[in-house]
Amino acid sequence: MCGIFGITDNKEAARLSYIGLFTLQHRGQESAGLAVDDGRGINCRAGMGLVGDVFAGGTLEDLPGRAAIGHVRYSTAGGSSIGNAQPLCFNTALGPVAVAHNGNLTNTAELKKNLQSRGAIFRSTSDSETIIHLMAFSGKRDPLAALEKSLPKLAGAYSFLFMTPGRVIAARDPLGIRPLVIGRLGRSWLFASETCAIEVVGARVVREVEPGELVWVERGRLRSKRFAPRRRPARCVFEQVYFARPDSFVMGKSVQGARYEMGRLLAAELRAAGVKADLVSGVPDSGNSAALGCAKGLRLPYRPVFMRNHYTGRSFIQPDQKIREFTARLKLAPIRDVIAGRTVLIIDDSLVRGTTSRKIVRSLKKAGARKVIMALASPPVLSPCYYGIDIASRKELAARRMSREALRRHIGADGLHYLSVPGLMLACSGKELPEHLQEGMRPGLNGLEKDFCTACFGGKYPVKPSKGE
Amino acid sequence: MCGIFGITDNKEAARLSYIGLFTLQHRGQESAGLAVDDGRGINCRAGMGLVGDVFAGGTLEDLPGRAAIGHVRYSTAGGSSIGNAQPLCFNTALGPVAVAHNGNLTNTAELKKNLQSRGAIFRSTSDSETIIHLMAFSGKRDPLAALEKSLPKLAGAYSFLFMTPGRVIAARDPLGIRPLVIGRLGRSWLFASETCAIEVVGARVVREVEPGELVWVERGRLRSKRFAPRRRPARCVFEQVYFARPDSFVMGKSVQGARYEMGRLLAAELRAAGVKADLVSGVPDSGNSAALGCAKGLRLPYRPVFMRNHYTGRSFIQPDQKIREFTARLKLAPIRDVIAGRTVLIIDDSLVRGTTSRKIVRSLKKAGARKVIMALASPPVLSPCYYGIDIASRKELAARRMSREALRRHIGADGLHYLSVPGLMLACSGKELPEHLQEGMRPGLNGLEKDFCTACFGGKYPVKPSKGE
Amino acid sequence: MCGIFGITDNKEAARLSYIGLFTLQHRGQESAGLAVDDGRGINCRAGMGLVGDVFAGGTLEDLPGRAAIGHVRYSTAGGSSIGNAQPLCFNTALGPVAVAHNGNLTNTAELKKNLQSRGAIFRSTSDSETIIHLMAFSGKRDPLAALEKSLPKLAGAYSFLFMTPGRVIAARDPLGIRPLVIGRLGRSWLFASETCAIEVVGARVVREVEPGELVWVERGRLRSKRFAPRRRPARCVFEQVYFARPDSFVMGKSVQGARYEMGRLLAAELRAAGVKADLVSGVPDSGNSAALGCAKGLRLPYRPVFMRNHYTGRSFIQPDQKIREFTARLKLAPIRDVIAGRTVLIIDDSLVRGTTSRKIVRSLKKAGARKVIMALASPPVLSPCYYGIDIASRKELAARRMSREALRRHIGADGLHYLSVPGLMLACSGKELPEHLQEGMRPGLNGLEKDFCTACFGGKYPVKPSKGE
Amino acid sequence: MCGIFGITDNKEAARLSYIGLFTLQHRGQESAGLAVDDGRGINCRAGMGLVGDVFAGGTLEDLPGRAAIGHVRYSTAGGSSIGNAQPLCFNTALGPVAVAHNGNLTNTAELKKNLQSRGAIFRSTSDSETIIHLMAFSGKRDPLAALEKSLPKLAGAYSFLFMTPGRVIAARDPLGIRPLVIGRLGRSWLFASETCAIEVVGARVVREVEPGELVWVERGRLRSKRFAPRRRPARCVFEQVYFARPDSFVMGKSVQGARYEMGRLLAAELRAAGVKADLVSGVPDSGNSAALGCAKGLRLPYRPVFMRNHYTGRSFIQPDQKIREFTARLKLAPIRDVIAGRTVLIIDDSLVRGTTSRKIVRSLKKAGARKVIMALASPPVLSPCYYGIDIASRKELAARRMSREALRRHIGADGLHYLSVPGLMLACSGKELPEHLQEGMRPGLNGLEKDFCTACFGGKYPVKPSKGE
Repeated sequence: MCGIFGITDNKEAARLSYIGLFTLQHRGQESAGLAVDDGRGINCRAGMGLVGDVFAGGTLEDLPGRAAIGHVRYSTAGGSSIGNAQPLCFNTALGPVAVAHNGNLTNTAELKKNLQSRGAIFRSTSDSETIIHLMAFSGKRDPLAALEKSLPKLAGAYSFLFMTPGRVIAARDPLGIRPLVIGRLGRSWLFASETCAIEVVGARVVREVEPGELVWVERGRLRSKRFAPRRRPARCVFEQVYFARPDSFVMGKSVQGARYEMGRLLAAELRAAGVKADLVSGVPDSGNSAALGCAKGLRLPYRPVFMRNHYTGRSFIQPDQKIREFTARLKLAPIRDVIAGRTVLIIDDSLVRGTTSRKIVRSLKKAGARKVIMALASPPVLSPCYYGIDIASRKELAARRMSREALRRHIGADGLHYLSVPGLMLACSGKELPEHLQEGMRPGLNGLEKDFCTACFGGKYPVKPSKGE
Repeated sequence: MCGIFGITDNKEAARLSYIGLFTLQHRGQESAGLAVDDGRGINCRAGMGLVGDVFAGGTLEDLPGRAAIGHVRYSTAGGSSIGNAQPLCFNTALGPVAVAHNGNLTNTAELKKNLQSRGAIFRSTSDSETIIHLMAFSGKRDPLAALEKSLPKLAGAYSFLFMTPGRVIAARDPLGIRPLVIGRLGRSWLFASETCAIEVVGARVVREVEPGELVWVERGRLRSKRFAPRRRPARCVFEQVYFARPDSFVMGKSVQGARYEMGRLLAAELRAAGVKADLVSGVPDSGNSAALGCAKGLRLPYRPVFMRNHYTGRSFIQPDQKIREFTARLKLAPIRDVIAGRTVLIIDDSLVRGTTSRKIVRSLKKAGARKVIMALASPPVLSPCYYGIDIASRKELAARRMSREALRRHIGADGLHYLSVPGLMLACSGKELPEHLQEGMRPGLNGLEKDFCTACFGGKYPVKPSKGE
Repeated sequence: MCGIFGITDNKEAARLSYIGLFTLQHRGQESAGLAVDDGRGINCRAGMGLVGDVFAGGTLEDLPGRAAIGHVRYSTAGGSSIGNAQPLCFNTALGPVAVAHNGNLTNTAELKKNLQSRGAIFRSTSDSETIIHLMAFSGKRDPLAALEKSLPKLAGAYSFLFMTPGRVIAARDPLGIRPLVIGRLGRSWLFASETCAIEVVGARVVREVEPGELVWVERGRLRSKRFAPRRRPARCVFEQVYFARPDSFVMGKSVQGARYEMGRLLAAELRAAGVKADLVSGVPDSGNSAALGCAKGLRLPYRPVFMRNHYTGRSFIQPDQKIREFTARLKLAPIRDVIAGRTVLIIDDSLVRGTTSRKIVRSLKKAGARKVIMALASPPVLSPCYYGIDIASRKELAARRMSREALRRHIGADGLHYLSVPGLMLACSGKELPEHLQEGMRPGLNGLEKDFCTACFGGKYPVKPSKGE
Repeated sequence: MCGIFGITDNKEAARLSYIGLFTLQHRGQESAGLAVDDGRGINCRAGMGLVGDVFAGGTLEDLPGRAAIGHVRYSTAGGSSIGNAQPLCFNTALGPVAVAHNGNLTNTAELKKNLQSRGAIFRSTSDSETIIHLMAFSGKRDPLAALEKSLPKLAGAYSFLFMTPGRVIAARDPLGIRPLVIGRLGRSWLFASETCAIEVVGARVVREVEPGELVWVERGRLRSKRFAPRRRPARCVFEQVYFARPDSFVMGKSVQGARYEMGRLLAAELRAAGVKADLVSGVPDSGNSAALGCAKGLRLPYRPVFMRNHYTGRSFIQPDQKIREFTARLKLAPIRDVIAGRTVLIIDDSLVRGTTSRKIVRSLKKAGARKVIMALASPPVLSPCYYGIDIASRKELAARRMSREALRRHIGADGLHYLSVPGLMLACSGKELPEHLQEGMRPGLNGLEKDFCTACFGGKYPVKPSKGE
C-alpha cells in the first residue's frame, strides 16, 4: 500500500505536498518523495524514511515550482531500496515523466519480458515502472495519447499520478480498487489517495477520480477522458476496515463512522449469539472505533485496557533476543485495574495470522481478566490479496488453516467472533443506519455489496492474478 | 519534569534500564542517558534526543555491568544542552558518583553561590549538580554519610537516584512532591518514577520510597534510613492530571482510573450546572480518559472528534511561516461527520495559557459544531509551579488574567467549566467511588486533600520558593 | 576525468577494488562505486563522495563475490548527482549489465535522440548510459556480440569496463585517447586506468588494452577481439602533464620521470632564452617534478617556496565572503625566508585560465620575491578538450585571449615561458634522454609525436566533436 | 601535542580563529573547539574530529563575539573523548573561565589528589583542568591574581590561553618548553602556537610570549607580568625536527630552513663518514626538507622516490586483516624507475620505534634499490618525553634497545646514520650558516644548545617527572 498526492497551479506546491504526504504517512513509512515542475523541468527528490526525515533541513526550499506530485511507500512490494522510492522520474522521447503509483499490477511479469525483448532497460524492481516503458514504446509522441493507449494493457489495481512539463495527470484502474480523490483550493487542483490530505491544506473535496478515468490539469483546467468502459467497481473494503485514516471520507461517511457502524452491526450479531461481557475495549488504535460502536450497541461500558507507547514506532530497536519478551508489553501495556476480574470483550479490526490476537489475549489474561472474548470488525480472511494489501500468503491465513473453534483455542480466548460479510458491506455502504439495529436486518443494501472486492473474504477475484504472482 | 530508573544485581542491567526509560519517555524527550557499574568503574552514556536514538546501534552492548541508573530529561529547566543530559557523572574524593534527578530545587542559587565561593566549579547549568558538590564539601568520606548530611540542605522537589561503585541509592524529598517507587524482580531491586516502568520488565511493585527516606541496595539487600522527620506530604496532583502514564498506579488506582473518576465527578458538577450536549469527546490523548468518565456520568455518547497524527511528534519541521496555518490541522484533524450540527462537550486535562483550547474550539466550530462546551478535568491554574512542572509564568496564566466569562469568550466556546478542587482531590485519592455520584457529595475525603500540593490551584506553597527563582 | 578498476577470480574482489579505487582517487572525488558479481547476480553500490566515505562502516562485507568493477567520478560531465554515480547497473533482455566509463563521447546527442525515438528511457544525464541502450537495441542476445556491434557507433574517448554475470569486459576507443591497462595477480586478471592501481595490490602490469580492442575474462582466461581496425593512436598527453599519478607508468617511464624530463627540456629552452634566477621551485604538487628537472638542467638550487595545507581538501567550507581573502593563503602558504630578496623561477604543469598563476605570483611578490619568473611544463593551451579533460571553454583560455606579453603582465610575472610542443612530446615519449640536453636537439623523436593528441595545444582534433557539444 | 589560537577585539573573532585552527590542524586532529566572548557571556563549542568537520554547516554564525580562543587536540594524553575536547569551559566563583592548553603537566597526580580532598570535582581526565581548580581554591577573586598564585604550582610544559569575560590571557611555562607567539592585526591581538597561524590571517608576528610570562589583553591593550623568575629556557627541539609546520618561524628562521640546515649539517657528517649514494630522497613529507639540504651538501641529485596518497588521512578504514599488506603501499607508493638499480640515501626526520624505517627500507628494496642508506635528521632518541611529545615508552625506543649496527640490520638498511646533537642544535639556532660546511665546525654555537631541552636525546630532564607518570 502507498499514498499519493498532487497539486497544480500553486506557488507553495512543494510545501503543500509535504503537508499532504505527512497526512498520508500512515499509508507508507518506507520512503517518501516529490517531483516538482518548476517551469523549466521536473525536479525529483526521494529518500528512504519518513516524510519529515526525507524533507528535513531546507530540502523543500530547493524545490520551487507551481505543480508537484508526491508519494509515500509501504515496505513490501518490489523490495526495499532507494531505487524503488517514488516518484520515479524518467527522460523519454515524450520528454521527462514522473510517476507515483498506489496499487499493485498483476501482469507485469509478462509485460516486462516483452518490453525487455524489444530493448527496454528497467532500472527499478518496482512494477510501477512498466507503464512508462509502455508509453515510450507506444509510438505516440504525446504523453496523454501514450497513456490512453498504454493503460488498458495493465491489469490489477492502480491509482496513478503522472507529471509531465505543464501537466499533472491522474488515472484510476477500471475497477476502482484503490481510492483517488480530487480537490480544489483557489485556482489549484489537488489529487490524493484520501480526503484527509485534501482537507488538511484547507481545500475542499470535489469528487473521486472515476474507475477507468483519465483526468488531467492543463493551463488551470481539469479535463477528463475515459480509457476503459464503465463497469461495476470492485472497491477494496480493507481501506475502511484498516488502511484509511479515521477522518477520511468514503461514500459520504467518515472512515471512523464506518468503523463505528461495523461495531454496532457486530454488536447486533453478538447479541444474537448471546455474548455477555463486563466491558468493551479496542486493540489500539485500529480497533477503537468499532469497539465504541459495539459498546454502544451492547449498552456496555467502553474502557481502554491498553496503553500504547507511541515512541516505539520508529526508533525502538529490539535490543536483544534475551529481553524480547518485554517488548510486547513495552508497545502495549495493559491497564490492570480496569481489566482485573472482568470479562473483557476486545475488538480488533481484523485477524490475519492470529499472532497479534494471541498476544493480546495472553496479555489481558495475565493482567487478571476473568474471561476474554475476541471479536473482529471484519469477516475471516480466507484468501491473499493481489492488489496491494499486504495480506499474508495463503498458508499463513489462520482462518484458512483451522476452524473457528481451533483458532479460538489457538489464541487462548474464551470466545471468538467475526462480523459477517453483509454486515461489513452495510457498514461501508455510506447508508445512514437506524439507531437500533437488530441482527439479520439489512436495510436497503440493494446489491450495494457488489461494488466491493471481497476476494480476501472468500469472494471472487475481480481480476485474475497472473501465474507469476 | 523528568523520568528516572534504576536496577541492581542484574546482568541485563543496561538493557532493562533501556526498556524502563523507553516506558518513561513521556516524562522527557530532550535527552536520555545511562550510568552502569561494571564492577571496575562507572560508565556513563548520555545524548540529546529520544531513548531509542541515544542508544541506537549497539550502544547497549558497550555497557556491561550488573547495576544501572538512567534518566530521561524534559526540555525546560537549566537550558537544553548535552552538558545537562543526565545521569551526570563525577569524580570526587568520595570516588565516582553518578546522579539522576527528577524535580526542581528551589534554593540552588544560594547553595551554588556559597559552594563556588568555597572553590566549587560547576560544569552544568542544571540544578541537579548541586547535591554532588554538597557531598564533596561535606567533609565525609562515605557517600551515604555525605548524602545524609547534604540532603537536608536542599529545598524543593527531588527524587534522586545515585550510583557509586557497588551501590545504588535512592532519595525522595521530605514532602514527596515527585514520585519514586521500588520494584523487585528475582534478586534485583528496581527504582522508577512510575510503576509502569517497573511492570514493563516483568517486575512487581513493592512500595513507594517514602518522603524523607534514603534507600540503598548493597550486596543484594535493600537498606533504609530517614534523613528528615516524617511530616504531612505534598504530592503533586498534576502527575495524575496530566504527567503520569495512564497505566501507572498511584495510591492503588491507575492514573487512567483516576482520570476516569475526574470525568465522572466533573459530570456530576456539570449536571448540577445544567450543562447539555449531544456528545462528549476528549482532546487527544490527555483528555480521553476523563471524557469517557464524563460521558458515562452524563449518560451521553462518547465519540472521538479528532484524529491525531502520531508522526508529527519528532520529525515534523514546520516548513514555513506561510503554511503554518495548516499545521494545527495536520496534528489534530477534526472528524467532520461526527461534529457537524452537534453540541460537543469537549474535555481537556487542564487549561494553562488557553492557546490550545482556543485552537480546539475554533477547529470544532469550523468543522460544523453547533455549540462547543469546553470542560477541564482540573481546577483553574492560578499560580506557577516551582517544583518541576513546566507551568507558564504568573502573567501568562489565563485563569489569573481574566474572569471565567472573559476566558470563555477568548477561547470562543459556548461554555467553560472546571472540575472543583475537592472533586480533583477525591478523584486522586484512590478511593473506590459509588457508581452514581451526585454533585456535592464528598464520600470519605477526610482531610485526604491535605496530602496533595495544590499551590498551582491557588493553594499554599509547601516550600517557599527562593527570591532568585 | 574518471578512474576505473576491475578484477576477476578473486575472493577479495571488493576489497582489492576498494584499494585500487583509493589509489585512483586523484582521478575523481565526486562519487565512487562498485559492482560485484556474487555468482547469483550483480550487486551495485555507489555514493557521492570519496571512496573511503562511500565504503565506510562495513559496506564492503556486504559485497561478497569473485569479480568486481569500480569507478571514481570527477565532477564535471553530466551534472553532479547520485544518479550519475557509476558503475551504472541495468536490467536488460541481455541480463544484468554494469558499466564503468572513463572518457567523453562526442556523438551522444544524436545517439540519444535516435534511441529515445525508438522507445529508450534514459535514467541518468551521463553519456555513459548510451552504450547500454545501444546494446539493448542491437538485436543481439549475447552481451559480447551486442558490444561488438554497438561500440563502433560511439565517437570520442572511452575506456570501458563492463560486468555481466560471469564476465568482466574491457574496451578502449580506437584512438586510445584514455588509458587502460591489464594486470595479473595469481589467477586474477585486473584492469585499471593507471598502473599504480595494478601495482598497489601487488599485481604485475601485463600490457595496455589496445586501442580498438575488446578484451574479456571468461572462466579465468583472457580473451581478445578487435572491434575497430588498427590506426595511429591519439593518446592524451595531459595524462602525463597533469592527470596521472607520478608513480604510474606510461610508455615504460614513470609519470614523474616524464615530468622530470619536461623540466629538463624546459631548462634547455630557458637557457637558450637567457633566463636567470636564484632558485627554482614548483607549484605544489603538480609542478614539483618538472621544477626538480628544471633546477637540475639549470644547475640552480631547488627549494620549496610554498607550504600546502592538506586538510583543506574536503572539509574546508569557505566560512564567509568577508574572510575569503585568507583562504588562498590557507591552502598555499609562502615560506618567506626562502623567497625574500630572491629571483624565483616557479614551475607549474600548465596554464589554462591564468587565475591560479596570478595568485601564485602575487603571493610570492608579497612574501618579498625580487622577481618572479613563471614557466610552464607544457605549451600554451589554445583549444578546448572534448575527450574528458575539463579544460575551460574557448573564450576562457588565457593563451587564446591574449599575447604572451599581455598574459605575463596579467599574471604579474617578470617573465613567462612555456615548454615547446616538440619538447613535451619528447619528454612523454618514454625515450631515455642524454644527461646534457641542449635546446633544439630532438634525439630520435622520429614522428613519435604523431601518436599523441595535441588538439588542446592547437593541433588537429582526432575525432570531430559534434555540433551539440 | 596540541595547537592553540586566540584573538581579541575583532568582530570576525570566531571566523579568524577557525582559519587559525585550520592552519594548526597538523598539531592535533582528534578534537577542535572554540570559546567566544560575546559581551554577555562565553559560548563554548567543541567536538571530536577535524576543524572543518566540527565547525561545518553554519556553526560559526552561531558564535558572535569580539574575542575567541581555540584549540586542536592530539589523541594521546587523557584519553580520547568529547569530555576532553578543549577549550574546557567552567563556571566558578571567579565567573566563567575557558582554557586551552598545549603541553603536558608532570605533577597533576599530586595536585589532583590534594584538590579532591578539599572538595574539588573533576569532570575530565585531561590534566588541563587542574589549573582551573587551583584558581578556584586560590582564595583570590580576580582571575589574574588567581592565575599568578596558581601557575607556580604547576610543573611541566604548558602554553595556556584563558578567556574570562572581557579578557584573553596567555601564559607560558618558565622553561618555555612549548611555543606561544603574539601577533597583531589592526586593533586585534593574536596568540598562537606557531607563527603560521598568525600570518595566515594577514597579521604580523610581534614576539614570543616569554617563558614565565603572563600576558593579557584588556580594553585593547596588551599587558604583561612575570609569574616566575627568568631562567635558562629549555625549548623543545622536536618542534623544529618534526612537529611544527615548515612555514612557521622559530628564532628568526623558518622551520623548513632549519630542516634544510639539518640536512646540510647531516651531509657534512655523512661526507666525513665516507657515505656514497646515487641520489638523495626524503620520507614524505617530514624528511623532504632535510633531504634537499643533504643532497645539496653532498652534491647529489635529489629525487622523490615515494608517492604519498593524501586521501588516506582520515577516511581510509583499513578494510580487513587479509589485505593489510597492501595498505603500506597504498599510503606510500615507491616510484620504481627512479629507484631501480640505484643506491638510495633516504632521509627521515627521526627514528623512534623503527617500524616505519623498516617498512621504508623494505619498500625501496622491493622496488629494486641496489642499496638503501637510512639517515636521520636528528640524534638517536634514548629517553621518553614527559612534556607533550608522544614518544614511545622507554622500552619501545629502538636506539635504547639495540646498538646502531643491530638497528641497521633490524630495519634492513645498508647503512644507518644520525645527525649529531651539536649539529641539530646548530641547525635550530637560527644562525646563518656558511654555504660550505665541514664536519666538526660549530660556527658560533656559543652555548646556545643550552637553551634547548635535549632530554629525549639522552640529556637532562629540565623538570623532574613525578612518580605517577
